[in-house]
Amino acid sequence: MNHGSPRPPVAPARSGVPEHGRVPKYYLVKTQLEDLLGELGPGGRLPTEIELSARYGVARATLRQALRDLLLEGRLRRLGRGTVVAGAKIEQPLSLASYTEGVTRQGLRPGRTLVALDRLPADPGLAGALGVEEDEPVWHLERVLYADEERVGLESTYVAVARVPRLDGDFDPAGSFYAYLRAQGLELGGAHERIETVLATPREALLIGTPPALPMLLLHRRSRDAAGAPFEQVRTLYRGDRFSFTLDLGAPTAH
Amino acid sequence: MNHGSPRPPVAPARSGVPEHGRVPKYYLVKTQLEDLLGELGPGGRLPTEIELSARYGVARATLRQALRDLLLEGRLRRLGRGTVVAGAKIEQPLSLASYTEGVTRQGLRPGRTLVALDRLPADPGLAGALGVEEDEPVWHLERVLYADEERVGLESTYVAVARVPRLDGDFDPAGSFYAYLRAQGLELGGAHERIETVLATPREALLIGTPPALPMLLLHRRSRDAAGAPFEQVRTLYRGDRFSFTLDLGAPTAH
Repeated sequence: MNHGSPRPPVAPARSGVPEHGRVPKYYLVKTQLEDLLGELGPGGRLPTEIELSARYGVARATLRQALRDLLLEGRLRRLGRGTVVAGAKIEQPLSLASYTEGVTRQGLRPGRTLVALDRLPADPGLAGALGVEEDEPVWHLERVLYADEERVGLESTYVAVARVPRLDGDFDPAGSFYAYLRAQGLELGGAHERIETVLATPREALLIGTPPALPMLLLHRRSRDAAGAPFEQVRTLYRGDRFSFTLDLGAPTAH
Repeated sequence: MNHGSPRPPVAPARSGVPEHGRVPKYYLVKTQLEDLLGELGPGGRLPTEIELSARYGVARATLRQALRDLLLEGRLRRLGRGTVVAGAKIEQPLSLASYTEGVTRQGLRPGRTLVALDRLPADPGLAGALGVEEDEPVWHLERVLYADEERVGLESTYVAVARVPRLDGDFDPAGSFYAYLRAQGLELGGAHERIETVLATPREALLIGTPPALPMLLLHRRSRDAAGAPFEQVRTLYRGDRFSFTLDLGAPTAH
Protein backbone atom coordinates (compact mmCIF):
# COMPACT_ATOMS: atom_id res chain seq x y z
CA MET A 1 0.00 0.00 0.00
CA ASN A 2 1.16 3.52 -0.72
CA HIS A 3 -0.36 6.35 1.28
CA GLY A 4 2.23 8.97 0.34
CA SER A 5 2.32 9.55 -3.41
CA PRO A 6 -0.90 10.80 -4.95
CA ARG A 7 -1.93 9.21 -8.23
CA PRO A 8 -4.71 10.10 -10.62
CA PRO A 9 -8.16 8.74 -9.65
CA VAL A 10 -8.53 7.11 -13.06
CA ALA A 11 -5.84 4.49 -12.24
CA PRO A 12 -7.51 1.52 -10.53
CA ALA A 13 -6.16 0.79 -7.06
CA ARG A 14 -4.16 -2.42 -7.45
CA SER A 15 -3.13 -3.24 -3.89
CA GLY A 16 -4.54 -6.56 -2.76
CA VAL A 17 -5.48 -7.67 -6.26
CA PRO A 18 -3.76 -10.81 -7.52
CA GLU A 19 -1.63 -9.56 -10.41
CA HIS A 20 -2.20 -12.53 -12.64
CA GLY A 21 -2.81 -10.30 -15.65
CA ARG A 22 -5.75 -12.35 -16.89
CA VAL A 23 -7.98 -9.45 -17.94
CA PRO A 24 -10.13 -10.90 -20.75
CA LYS A 25 -9.45 -9.52 -24.23
CA TYR A 26 -13.10 -8.52 -24.77
CA TYR A 27 -12.84 -6.32 -21.68
CA LEU A 28 -9.84 -4.43 -23.09
CA VAL A 29 -11.85 -3.79 -26.27
CA LYS A 30 -14.77 -2.66 -24.09
CA THR A 31 -12.64 0.01 -22.37
CA GLN A 32 -11.42 1.20 -25.81
CA LEU A 33 -15.03 1.34 -27.00
CA GLU A 34 -15.96 3.32 -23.86
CA ASP A 35 -13.39 5.97 -24.87
CA LEU A 36 -14.92 6.01 -28.36
CA LEU A 37 -18.45 6.47 -26.90
CA GLY A 38 -17.15 9.44 -24.90
CA GLU A 39 -15.82 11.03 -28.11
CA LEU A 40 -19.00 10.34 -30.11
CA GLY A 41 -21.38 11.56 -27.38
CA PRO A 42 -25.05 10.60 -26.86
CA GLY A 43 -26.83 9.86 -30.15
CA GLY A 44 -23.52 9.37 -32.01
CA ARG A 45 -23.58 6.47 -34.47
CA LEU A 46 -21.06 3.65 -34.00
CA PRO A 47 -18.95 2.43 -36.95
CA THR A 48 -19.81 -1.04 -38.31
CA GLU A 49 -18.60 -4.22 -36.59
CA ILE A 50 -16.22 -4.84 -39.51
CA GLU A 51 -14.63 -1.41 -39.10
CA LEU A 52 -14.38 -1.77 -35.32
CA SER A 53 -12.86 -5.29 -35.49
CA ALA A 54 -10.18 -3.95 -37.85
CA ARG A 55 -9.56 -0.82 -35.73
CA TYR A 56 -8.95 -2.77 -32.51
CA GLY A 57 -7.37 -5.81 -34.17
CA VAL A 58 -9.77 -8.37 -32.65
CA ALA A 59 -12.07 -11.11 -33.95
CA ARG A 60 -15.74 -10.28 -34.60
CA ALA A 61 -16.78 -12.62 -31.74
CA THR A 62 -14.57 -10.70 -29.26
CA LEU A 63 -15.87 -7.35 -30.47
CA ARG A 64 -19.47 -8.59 -30.19
CA GLN A 65 -18.99 -9.67 -26.58
CA ALA A 66 -17.78 -6.15 -25.73
CA LEU A 67 -20.72 -4.58 -27.62
CA ARG A 68 -23.17 -6.92 -25.86
CA ASP A 69 -21.92 -5.80 -22.42
CA LEU A 70 -22.29 -2.14 -23.41
CA LEU A 71 -25.82 -2.81 -24.71
CA LEU A 72 -26.82 -4.65 -21.50
CA GLU A 73 -25.44 -1.76 -19.44
CA GLY A 74 -27.37 0.82 -21.45
CA ARG A 75 -24.27 2.54 -22.84
CA LEU A 76 -25.32 1.67 -26.41
CA ARG A 77 -28.73 1.42 -28.03
CA ARG A 78 -29.92 -0.25 -31.21
CA LEU A 79 -31.51 2.27 -33.55
CA GLY A 80 -32.93 0.90 -36.79
CA ARG A 81 -30.14 -1.16 -38.34
CA GLY A 82 -27.37 0.68 -36.49
CA THR A 83 -26.09 1.25 -32.98
CA VAL A 84 -25.88 4.64 -31.27
CA VAL A 85 -24.41 5.96 -28.02
CA ALA A 86 -27.13 6.01 -25.35
CA GLY A 87 -27.98 9.03 -23.21
CA ALA A 88 -27.93 8.97 -19.42
CA LYS A 89 -30.29 6.58 -17.63
CA ILE A 90 -33.69 7.94 -16.62
CA GLU A 91 -33.64 8.87 -12.91
CA GLN A 92 -36.83 7.70 -11.21
CA PRO A 93 -37.26 9.19 -7.71
CA LEU A 94 -38.22 6.65 -5.06
CA SER A 95 -41.35 8.31 -3.67
CA LEU A 96 -45.07 7.77 -3.44
CA ALA A 97 -45.47 9.76 -6.65
CA SER A 98 -46.49 7.71 -9.68
CA TYR A 99 -44.47 6.59 -12.69
CA THR A 100 -46.20 9.34 -14.67
CA GLU A 101 -44.92 12.05 -12.34
CA GLY A 102 -41.38 10.62 -12.21
CA VAL A 103 -40.96 10.37 -15.97
CA THR A 104 -42.57 13.75 -16.64
CA ARG A 105 -40.03 15.35 -14.29
CA GLN A 106 -37.32 13.97 -16.66
CA GLY A 107 -38.83 15.82 -19.62
CA LEU A 108 -40.13 12.59 -21.17
CA ARG A 109 -43.68 11.73 -22.17
CA PRO A 110 -44.99 8.83 -20.04
CA GLY A 111 -47.32 6.30 -21.60
CA ARG A 112 -49.00 3.04 -20.68
CA THR A 113 -50.69 0.32 -22.67
CA LEU A 114 -52.96 -2.29 -21.18
CA VAL A 115 -51.84 -5.92 -21.19
CA ALA A 116 -54.65 -7.24 -19.02
CA LEU A 117 -57.25 -6.26 -16.44
CA ASP A 118 -58.44 -9.35 -14.61
CA ARG A 119 -60.52 -10.25 -11.56
CA LEU A 120 -58.80 -12.87 -9.42
CA PRO A 121 -59.66 -14.55 -6.11
CA ALA A 122 -57.02 -13.45 -3.56
CA ASP A 123 -54.52 -16.19 -2.68
CA PRO A 124 -53.25 -16.22 0.93
CA GLY A 125 -50.21 -13.99 0.17
CA LEU A 126 -52.23 -11.41 -1.72
CA ALA A 127 -55.00 -11.48 0.90
CA GLY A 128 -52.42 -10.60 3.57
CA ALA A 129 -50.85 -7.85 1.46
CA LEU A 130 -54.22 -6.27 0.66
CA GLY A 131 -55.89 -6.85 4.02
CA VAL A 132 -58.79 -8.83 2.53
CA GLU A 133 -60.19 -12.31 3.10
CA GLU A 134 -58.81 -15.21 1.07
CA ASP A 135 -60.68 -15.67 -2.24
CA GLU A 136 -62.09 -12.12 -2.07
CA PRO A 137 -62.02 -10.64 -5.60
CA VAL A 138 -58.93 -8.61 -6.52
CA TRP A 139 -58.09 -6.62 -9.65
CA HIS A 140 -54.87 -7.45 -11.45
CA LEU A 141 -53.98 -4.54 -13.72
CA GLU A 142 -50.97 -5.20 -15.96
CA ARG A 143 -49.53 -2.47 -18.17
CA VAL A 144 -46.45 -1.85 -20.30
CA LEU A 145 -44.74 1.43 -19.38
CA TYR A 146 -43.46 3.83 -22.04
CA ALA A 147 -41.08 6.80 -21.99
CA ASP A 148 -41.67 8.76 -25.21
CA GLU A 149 -42.06 6.00 -27.83
CA GLU A 150 -39.91 3.47 -26.01
CA ARG A 151 -41.13 0.51 -23.92
CA VAL A 152 -39.22 0.74 -20.63
CA GLY A 153 -41.10 -1.34 -18.08
CA LEU A 154 -43.96 -3.59 -17.04
CA GLU A 155 -46.23 -2.95 -14.05
CA SER A 156 -48.61 -5.29 -12.22
CA THR A 157 -50.98 -3.67 -9.73
CA TYR A 158 -53.16 -5.70 -7.35
CA VAL A 159 -55.99 -3.96 -5.48
CA ALA A 160 -59.20 -5.26 -3.88
CA VAL A 161 -62.24 -4.96 -6.15
CA ALA A 162 -64.16 -3.63 -3.11
CA ARG A 163 -61.80 -0.59 -3.04
CA VAL A 164 -62.27 0.41 -6.70
CA PRO A 165 -65.32 -1.53 -7.89
CA ARG A 166 -65.68 0.29 -11.22
CA LEU A 167 -62.01 0.02 -12.32
CA ASP A 168 -63.01 -1.96 -15.43
CA GLY A 169 -65.55 0.69 -16.37
CA ASP A 170 -64.32 4.20 -15.62
CA PHE A 171 -60.50 3.94 -15.54
CA ASP A 172 -58.44 4.92 -18.60
CA PRO A 173 -55.60 2.35 -18.64
CA ALA A 174 -53.34 4.83 -20.48
CA GLY A 175 -53.53 7.16 -17.47
CA SER A 176 -52.13 7.34 -13.95
CA PHE A 177 -53.74 4.90 -11.48
CA TYR A 178 -52.83 7.20 -8.57
CA ALA A 179 -54.50 10.16 -10.29
CA TYR A 180 -57.60 7.94 -10.70
CA LEU A 181 -57.47 7.08 -6.98
CA ARG A 182 -57.19 10.76 -6.02
CA ALA A 183 -60.20 11.54 -8.20
CA GLN A 184 -62.12 8.94 -6.11
CA GLY A 185 -60.96 10.65 -2.91
CA LEU A 186 -58.49 7.85 -2.11
CA GLU A 187 -55.08 9.03 -0.85
CA LEU A 188 -52.08 6.78 -0.10
CA GLY A 189 -50.56 7.14 3.36
CA GLY A 190 -47.25 5.34 2.82
CA ALA A 191 -45.58 2.28 1.34
CA HIS A 192 -42.93 -0.34 1.95
CA GLU A 193 -40.66 -0.97 -1.04
CA ARG A 194 -38.09 -3.61 -1.93
CA ILE A 195 -35.70 -3.28 -4.86
CA GLU A 196 -33.74 -6.06 -6.51
CA THR A 197 -32.14 -6.93 -9.82
CA VAL A 198 -33.56 -9.86 -11.81
CA LEU A 199 -33.34 -11.23 -15.35
CA ALA A 200 -36.39 -10.66 -17.53
CA THR A 201 -38.46 -13.78 -18.20
CA PRO A 202 -39.16 -14.61 -21.87
CA ARG A 203 -42.74 -13.32 -21.46
CA GLU A 204 -41.54 -10.07 -19.87
CA ALA A 205 -38.79 -9.64 -22.48
CA LEU A 206 -41.40 -10.11 -25.21
CA LEU A 207 -43.76 -7.54 -23.68
CA ILE A 208 -41.01 -4.95 -23.10
CA GLY A 209 -39.09 -5.79 -26.28
CA THR A 210 -35.73 -6.58 -24.64
CA PRO A 211 -33.35 -9.52 -24.82
CA PRO A 212 -34.27 -12.10 -22.09
CA ALA A 213 -30.82 -11.82 -20.46
CA LEU A 214 -31.18 -8.08 -19.78
CA PRO A 215 -30.75 -7.25 -16.07
CA MET A 216 -33.86 -5.43 -14.82
CA LEU A 217 -34.63 -3.38 -11.72
CA LEU A 218 -37.63 -4.91 -9.95
CA LEU A 219 -39.51 -2.77 -7.47
CA HIS A 220 -42.02 -4.39 -5.09
CA ARG A 221 -44.39 -1.98 -3.36
CA ARG A 222 -46.98 -2.55 -0.63
CA SER A 223 -48.89 0.63 -0.03
CA ARG A 224 -51.26 1.74 2.73
CA ASP A 225 -54.20 4.11 2.60
CA ALA A 226 -54.35 7.36 4.60
CA ALA A 227 -55.70 5.43 7.62
CA GLY A 228 -52.74 3.01 7.49
CA ALA A 229 -54.72 -0.01 6.19
CA PRO A 230 -53.18 -2.25 3.48
CA PHE A 231 -54.29 -0.99 0.08
CA GLU A 232 -52.27 -2.11 -2.92
CA GLN A 233 -49.47 -4.43 -4.06
CA VAL A 234 -47.39 -3.44 -7.07
CA ARG A 235 -44.60 -5.19 -8.96
CA THR A 236 -42.82 -2.88 -11.41
CA LEU A 237 -40.08 -4.09 -13.69
CA TYR A 238 -37.84 -1.36 -15.14
CA ARG A 239 -35.26 -1.86 -17.90
CA GLY A 240 -31.92 -1.91 -16.08
CA ASP A 241 -30.19 -0.30 -19.06
CA ARG A 242 -32.57 2.68 -19.07
CA PHE A 243 -33.46 3.39 -15.42
CA SER A 244 -31.85 4.30 -12.14
CA PHE A 245 -33.59 5.16 -8.85
CA THR A 246 -32.80 8.23 -6.78
CA LEU A 247 -33.47 8.98 -3.15
CA ASP A 248 -32.83 11.72 -0.60
CA LEU A 249 -32.01 10.49 2.88
CA GLY A 250 -32.30 12.67 5.95
CA ALA A 251 -30.52 12.05 9.22
CA PRO A 252 -32.53 9.73 11.53
CA THR A 253 -33.10 12.67 13.90
CA ALA A 254 -34.08 15.17 11.20
CA HIS A 255 -37.75 14.19 11.14
CA MET B 1 -60.09 -9.52 -22.13
CA ASN B 2 -62.22 -11.30 -19.61
CA HIS B 3 -63.27 -9.34 -16.53
CA GLY B 4 -65.93 -11.74 -15.37
CA SER B 5 -64.50 -15.16 -14.64
CA PRO B 6 -61.87 -15.32 -11.92
CA ARG B 7 -58.82 -17.45 -12.61
CA PRO B 8 -55.97 -18.46 -10.32
CA PRO B 9 -53.22 -15.83 -9.93
CA VAL B 10 -50.58 -18.38 -10.96
CA ALA B 11 -51.78 -18.37 -14.59
CA PRO B 12 -49.94 -15.62 -16.48
CA ALA B 13 -52.26 -13.05 -18.03
CA ARG B 14 -52.12 -13.74 -21.75
CA SER B 15 -54.17 -10.92 -23.25
CA GLY B 16 -52.06 -8.76 -25.53
CA VAL B 17 -49.22 -11.26 -25.75
CA PRO B 18 -48.51 -12.66 -29.21
CA GLU B 19 -49.34 -16.35 -28.91
CA HIS B 20 -46.48 -17.58 -31.04
CA GLY B 21 -45.61 -20.29 -28.51
CA ARG B 22 -41.87 -19.66 -28.77
CA VAL B 23 -41.01 -20.03 -25.08
CA PRO B 24 -37.38 -21.26 -25.10
CA LYS B 25 -36.86 -24.84 -23.93
CA TYR B 26 -34.34 -23.81 -21.25
CA TYR B 27 -37.01 -21.60 -19.71
CA LEU B 28 -39.44 -24.51 -19.38
CA VAL B 29 -36.70 -26.47 -17.59
CA LYS B 30 -36.08 -23.43 -15.40
CA THR B 31 -39.71 -23.35 -14.24
CA GLN B 32 -39.53 -27.10 -13.49
CA LEU B 33 -36.33 -26.51 -11.54
CA GLU B 34 -38.04 -23.70 -9.61
CA ASP B 35 -40.68 -26.19 -8.46
CA LEU B 36 -37.89 -28.54 -7.39
CA LEU B 37 -36.15 -25.72 -5.42
CA GLY B 38 -39.42 -25.07 -3.61
CA GLU B 39 -39.61 -28.75 -2.59
CA LEU B 40 -35.95 -28.94 -1.51
CA GLY B 41 -36.04 -25.69 0.49
CA PRO B 42 -33.06 -23.40 1.38
CA GLY B 43 -29.83 -25.36 1.84
CA GLY B 44 -31.22 -28.39 -0.02
CA ARG B 45 -28.69 -30.03 -2.34
CA LEU B 46 -29.49 -30.29 -6.05
CA PRO B 47 -29.14 -33.64 -7.89
CA THR B 48 -26.27 -33.86 -10.40
CA GLU B 49 -26.53 -32.37 -13.90
CA ILE B 50 -26.62 -35.90 -15.34
CA GLU B 51 -29.59 -36.84 -13.14
CA LEU B 52 -31.43 -33.57 -13.89
CA SER B 53 -30.88 -33.85 -17.67
CA ALA B 54 -32.38 -37.35 -17.57
CA ARG B 55 -35.26 -36.30 -15.30
CA TYR B 56 -36.38 -33.42 -17.57
CA GLY B 57 -35.39 -35.09 -20.85
CA VAL B 58 -33.15 -32.24 -22.08
CA ALA B 59 -29.57 -31.87 -23.26
CA ARG B 60 -26.90 -30.89 -20.73
CA ALA B 61 -26.40 -27.53 -22.50
CA THR B 62 -30.11 -26.70 -22.09
CA LEU B 63 -30.06 -27.72 -18.44
CA ARG B 64 -26.94 -25.63 -17.82
CA GLN B 65 -28.54 -22.52 -19.30
CA ALA B 66 -31.44 -22.92 -16.87
CA LEU B 67 -29.06 -23.48 -13.93
CA ARG B 68 -26.97 -20.45 -14.96
CA ASP B 69 -30.07 -18.19 -14.86
CA LEU B 70 -30.99 -19.50 -11.39
CA LEU B 71 -27.40 -18.92 -10.18
CA LEU B 72 -27.33 -15.35 -11.57
CA GLU B 73 -30.66 -14.65 -9.86
CA GLY B 74 -29.41 -15.97 -6.54
CA ARG B 75 -31.91 -18.86 -6.40
CA LEU B 76 -29.01 -21.37 -6.37
CA ARG B 77 -25.55 -21.22 -4.82
CA ARG B 78 -22.38 -23.19 -5.43
CA LEU B 79 -21.24 -24.95 -2.27
CA GLY B 80 -18.04 -26.96 -2.51
CA ARG B 81 -18.45 -29.20 -5.56
CA GLY B 82 -22.24 -29.12 -5.38
CA THR B 83 -25.12 -26.72 -5.83
CA VAL B 84 -27.65 -25.88 -3.10
CA VAL B 85 -30.90 -23.91 -2.91
CA ALA B 86 -30.12 -20.34 -1.78
CA GLY B 87 -31.88 -18.59 1.09
CA ALA B 88 -33.69 -15.27 0.72
CA LYS B 89 -31.68 -12.25 -0.41
CA ILE B 90 -30.24 -10.03 2.33
CA GLU B 91 -32.48 -6.97 2.79
CA GLN B 92 -30.36 -3.84 3.18
CA PRO B 93 -32.42 -0.84 4.39
CA LEU B 94 -31.80 2.34 2.41
CA SER B 95 -30.89 4.70 5.24
CA LEU B 96 -27.96 6.72 6.55
CA ALA B 97 -27.03 3.75 8.73
CA SER B 98 -23.87 1.93 7.70
CA TYR B 99 -23.43 -1.44 6.00
CA THR B 100 -22.44 -2.85 9.39
CA GLU B 101 -25.76 -1.84 10.95
CA GLY B 102 -27.81 -3.12 8.00
CA VAL B 103 -26.20 -6.56 7.88
CA THR B 104 -26.23 -6.98 11.68
CA ARG B 105 -29.99 -6.35 11.65
CA GLN B 106 -30.26 -9.43 9.35
CA GLY B 107 -28.56 -11.64 11.93
CA LEU B 108 -25.37 -11.85 9.86
CA ARG B 109 -21.85 -10.95 10.91
CA PRO B 110 -20.56 -8.02 8.82
CA GLY B 111 -16.90 -7.88 7.87
CA ARG B 112 -14.60 -5.76 5.72
CA THR B 113 -11.13 -6.27 4.32
CA LEU B 114 -8.96 -3.47 3.02
CA VAL B 115 -8.15 -3.40 -0.69
CA ALA B 116 -6.46 0.00 -0.68
CA LEU B 117 -6.22 3.28 1.21
CA ASP B 118 -4.76 5.93 -1.08
CA ARG B 119 -4.29 9.71 -1.11
CA LEU B 120 -5.39 11.23 -4.40
CA PRO B 121 -5.55 14.79 -5.72
CA ALA B 122 -9.25 15.63 -6.25
CA ASP B 123 -10.27 15.73 -9.91
CA PRO B 124 -12.96 18.29 -10.85
CA GLY B 125 -15.86 15.86 -10.30
CA LEU B 126 -14.65 14.70 -6.91
CA ALA B 127 -13.79 18.28 -5.85
CA GLY B 128 -17.40 19.27 -6.55
CA ALA B 129 -18.82 16.25 -4.72
CA LEU B 130 -16.66 16.82 -1.65
CA GLY B 131 -16.74 20.64 -1.63
CA VAL B 132 -12.95 20.98 -1.85
CA GLU B 133 -10.59 22.72 -4.27
CA GLU B 134 -9.34 20.80 -7.30
CA ASP B 135 -6.13 18.85 -6.53
CA GLU B 136 -6.78 19.02 -2.77
CA PRO B 137 -5.82 15.65 -1.20
CA VAL B 138 -8.61 13.10 -0.86
CA TRP B 139 -8.66 9.65 0.75
CA HIS B 140 -9.82 6.74 -1.38
CA LEU B 141 -10.73 3.86 0.92
CA GLU B 142 -11.60 0.65 -0.91
CA ARG B 143 -12.87 -2.41 0.96
CA VAL B 144 -14.44 -5.79 0.21
CA LEU B 145 -17.67 -6.33 2.18
CA TYR B 146 -18.45 -9.63 3.89
CA ALA B 147 -21.62 -11.17 5.34
CA ASP B 148 -20.51 -14.02 7.60
CA GLU B 149 -17.69 -15.66 5.60
CA GLU B 150 -19.03 -14.65 2.20
CA ARG B 151 -17.77 -11.78 0.02
CA VAL B 152 -20.88 -9.82 -0.97
CA GLY B 153 -19.75 -6.37 -2.10
CA LEU B 154 -17.08 -3.78 -2.80
CA GLU B 155 -17.11 -0.24 -1.40
CA SER B 156 -15.13 2.85 -2.44
CA THR B 157 -15.29 5.84 -0.09
CA TYR B 158 -13.87 9.25 -1.01
CA VAL B 159 -13.45 11.88 1.70
CA ALA B 160 -11.21 14.98 1.98
CA VAL B 161 -7.98 14.33 3.90
CA ALA B 162 -8.61 17.64 5.73
CA ARG B 163 -11.80 16.10 7.23
CA VAL B 164 -10.15 12.95 8.67
CA PRO B 165 -6.40 13.63 8.53
CA ARG B 166 -5.36 10.57 10.54
CA LEU B 167 -7.47 7.99 8.65
CA ASP B 168 -4.32 6.06 7.67
CA GLY B 169 -3.17 5.92 11.29
CA ASP B 170 -6.07 5.42 13.69
CA PHE B 171 -8.86 3.81 11.62
CA ASP B 172 -9.38 0.05 11.74
CA PRO B 173 -10.31 -0.87 8.14
CA ALA B 174 -12.27 -3.91 9.38
CA GLY B 175 -14.63 -1.57 11.26
CA SER B 176 -17.43 0.82 10.44
CA PHE B 177 -16.31 4.11 8.86
CA TYR B 178 -19.44 5.86 10.20
CA ALA B 179 -18.72 4.62 13.74
CA TYR B 180 -15.19 6.05 13.31
CA LEU B 181 -16.67 9.38 12.19
CA ARG B 182 -19.03 9.51 15.18
CA ALA B 183 -16.07 8.84 17.51
CA GLN B 184 -14.47 11.97 15.96
CA GLY B 185 -17.62 13.96 16.64
CA LEU B 186 -18.58 13.98 12.94
CA GLU B 187 -22.29 13.34 12.22
CA LEU B 188 -23.85 13.01 8.78
CA GLY B 189 -26.83 15.25 8.06
CA GLY B 190 -28.22 13.57 4.95
CA ALA B 191 -27.36 12.03 1.59
CA HIS B 192 -28.45 11.79 -2.03
CA GLU B 193 -28.42 8.25 -3.42
CA ARG B 194 -28.70 6.75 -6.87
CA ILE B 195 -29.25 3.02 -7.50
CA GLU B 196 -28.65 1.16 -10.74
CA THR B 197 -27.87 -2.32 -11.98
CA VAL B 198 -24.51 -2.92 -13.69
CA LEU B 199 -22.37 -5.89 -14.70
CA ALA B 200 -19.28 -6.48 -12.55
CA THR B 201 -15.99 -5.60 -14.26
CA PRO B 202 -13.32 -8.34 -14.34
CA ARG B 203 -11.42 -6.57 -11.50
CA GLU B 204 -14.58 -6.27 -9.39
CA ALA B 205 -15.58 -9.88 -10.10
CA LEU B 206 -12.10 -11.00 -9.03
CA LEU B 207 -12.24 -9.00 -5.77
CA ILE B 208 -15.76 -10.19 -4.87
CA GLY B 209 -15.30 -13.70 -6.27
CA THR B 210 -18.23 -13.66 -8.69
CA PRO B 211 -18.59 -14.43 -12.40
CA PRO B 212 -18.03 -11.21 -14.44
CA ALA B 213 -21.53 -11.39 -15.98
CA LEU B 214 -23.29 -11.26 -12.60
CA PRO B 215 -25.77 -8.36 -12.38
CA MET B 216 -24.85 -6.14 -9.42
CA LEU B 217 -26.71 -3.44 -7.54
CA LEU B 218 -24.62 -0.25 -7.58
CA LEU B 219 -25.39 2.41 -4.98
CA HIS B 220 -23.90 5.90 -5.41
CA ARG B 221 -24.05 8.11 -2.32
CA ARG B 222 -23.16 11.76 -1.80
CA SER B 223 -23.48 12.64 1.86
CA ARG B 224 -23.52 15.94 3.74
CA ASP B 225 -22.35 16.79 7.23
CA ALA B 226 -24.70 18.04 9.95
CA ALA B 227 -24.24 21.61 8.67
CA GLY B 228 -25.29 20.55 5.15
CA ALA B 229 -21.80 20.84 3.58
CA PRO B 230 -20.63 18.14 1.11
CA PHE B 231 -18.74 15.47 3.02
CA GLU B 232 -18.29 12.10 1.32
CA GLN B 233 -18.79 10.23 -1.95
CA VAL B 234 -19.36 6.48 -1.84
CA ARG B 235 -19.75 3.85 -4.55
CA THR B 236 -20.96 0.50 -3.18
CA LEU B 237 -21.36 -2.54 -5.37
CA TYR B 238 -23.59 -5.30 -3.93
CA ARG B 239 -23.97 -8.81 -5.37
CA GLY B 240 -27.32 -8.74 -7.17
CA ASP B 241 -27.92 -12.41 -6.33
CA ARG B 242 -27.49 -11.80 -2.58
CA PHE B 243 -28.91 -8.34 -1.85
CA SER B 244 -32.09 -6.35 -2.11
CA PHE B 245 -32.77 -2.85 -0.81
CA THR B 246 -35.76 -1.90 1.32
CA LEU B 247 -37.33 1.45 1.99
CA ASP B 248 -40.29 2.93 3.86
CA LEU B 249 -42.03 5.78 2.12
CA GLY B 250 -44.28 8.23 3.89
CA ALA B 251 -46.89 10.38 2.21
CA PRO B 252 -45.44 13.71 0.96
CA THR B 253 -47.52 15.57 3.53
CA ALA B 254 -46.65 13.27 6.45
CA HIS B 255 -43.41 15.11 7.34
